[in-house]
Amino acid sequence: MPRTTATRIPEKMSTDWSQVQELMSDVLVGHVGLVEDDGHPVVFPTAVVLDGERLLLHGSTGSRWMRRLASGVPVSVAVTSIDAVVVARTAFESSLSYRSAVFFGRCRRVAGEELEAALAVVTNRIVPGRVAEVRASNSRELAATMLLELPVESWSLRISSGPPTDEPEDIAGGAWAGNLPVVRTYAEPVPSPDLRPGIGVPASVTARLADRVRV
Amino acid sequence: MPRTTATRIPEKMSTDWSQVQELMSDVLVGHVGLVEDDGHPVVFPTAVVLDGERLLLHGSTGSRWMRRLASGVPVSVAVTSIDAVVVARTAFESSLSYRSAVFFGRCRRVAGEELEAALAVVTNRIVPGRVAEVRASNSRELAATMLLELPVESWSLRISSGPPTDEPEDIAGGAWAGNLPVVRTYAEPVPSPDLRPGIGVPASVTARLADRVRV
Repeated sequence: MPRTTATRIPEKMSTDWSQVQELMSDVLVGHVGLVEDDGHPVVFPTAVVLDGERLLLHGSTGSRWMRRLASGVPVSVAVTSIDAVVVARTAFESSLSYRSAVFFGRCRRVAGEELEAALAVVTNRIVPGRVAEVRASNSRELAATMLLELPVESWSLRISSGPPTDEPEDIAGGAWAGNLPVVRTYAEPVPSPDLRPGIGVPASVTARLADRVRV
Repeated sequence: MPRTTATRIPEKMSTDWSQVQELMSDVLVGHVGLVEDDGHPVVFPTAVVLDGERLLLHGSTGSRWMRRLASGVPVSVAVTSIDAVVVARTAFESSLSYRSAVFFGRCRRVAGEELEAALAVVTNRIVPGRVAEVRASNSRELAATMLLELPVESWSLRISSGPPTDEPEDIAGGAWAGNLPVVRTYAEPVPSPDLRPGIGVPASVTARLADRVRV
């Protein structure tokens, strides 16, 4: 349920969950905000995957901030795609096209029997099909995995798109206006220096090369 | 001065300001965290430009969160570039290569005689040379511009890069390992539907097409 009512430009607000799902299929990383004991805010990035109506946040067990999140403090997670530079006829009307979802709730650490399945969701989201190509995680690895679940209590989605909206007197002038779309792709894979000879690029990685991604 | 001491994996911490500058020349958008009156955190994206030892944050005057920042509450701003997917031989060692700077401080609104110059810095950061191609902002536009300055009180920088670091027994196995670099570029510009005939793509936009950008 959207937490934030439309205090900003209304056409930028969306309450369409399918647009949130589309955004989350384009973006691998979210920015997580929490409040420190001293009342100051902290923001940091981490891998974020939408799994049904929960987010899965994957980070380092060594991260003090991830451990604080695991204690259940209130959290805000923003996931953003920058889609274009909007080049207007004036500096004032120039902007960025973007989609940005903000989620609110409290995290808990995923552990025990749920962990392996949740980790597979994250791994297959980042490189689809990769789970089937690698060995299962062992108990040492699972114990060292910091995977948080955020049941989404509330959210908001803002979308800014379309061409510049210049004033008539500027449209009548001589300046150009348009959009510069941002495209994100993968470059050719770089094999690890310690890769043994004869091991080819797997299907999961080859498939990613065909994708246009937003991260 | 870095606020955060190395509580995480040490090789990921950097105290090199030139690496912050390089990151800020690759990324147009930051994620801003603040604390609401009820003590809850909020994170939202906005255009962020490094100008000397201050950040300039450009957003909407209609944004309640930008107005709250202008009141001088403590703020944290994270700027992140995702540079590669690190495809290890195990799910556990798989990760993302990234650079992420986190800044701390308090904002103030830029107004009066400073505003025009600061706005030019932001516009020319997003599309270098654009300021010279468009008319000056008028007083109505300047009054409606929400530009914040964040003198950087403290910051931290984390960098994760390089190939996967698998265990010897996994290196000896049959799984592939390597990096999938993320490349961000601009696609061909899309002229505004209301562009008058005969106005060609300006030099500032043509120059951007040659760049690889991270946003």
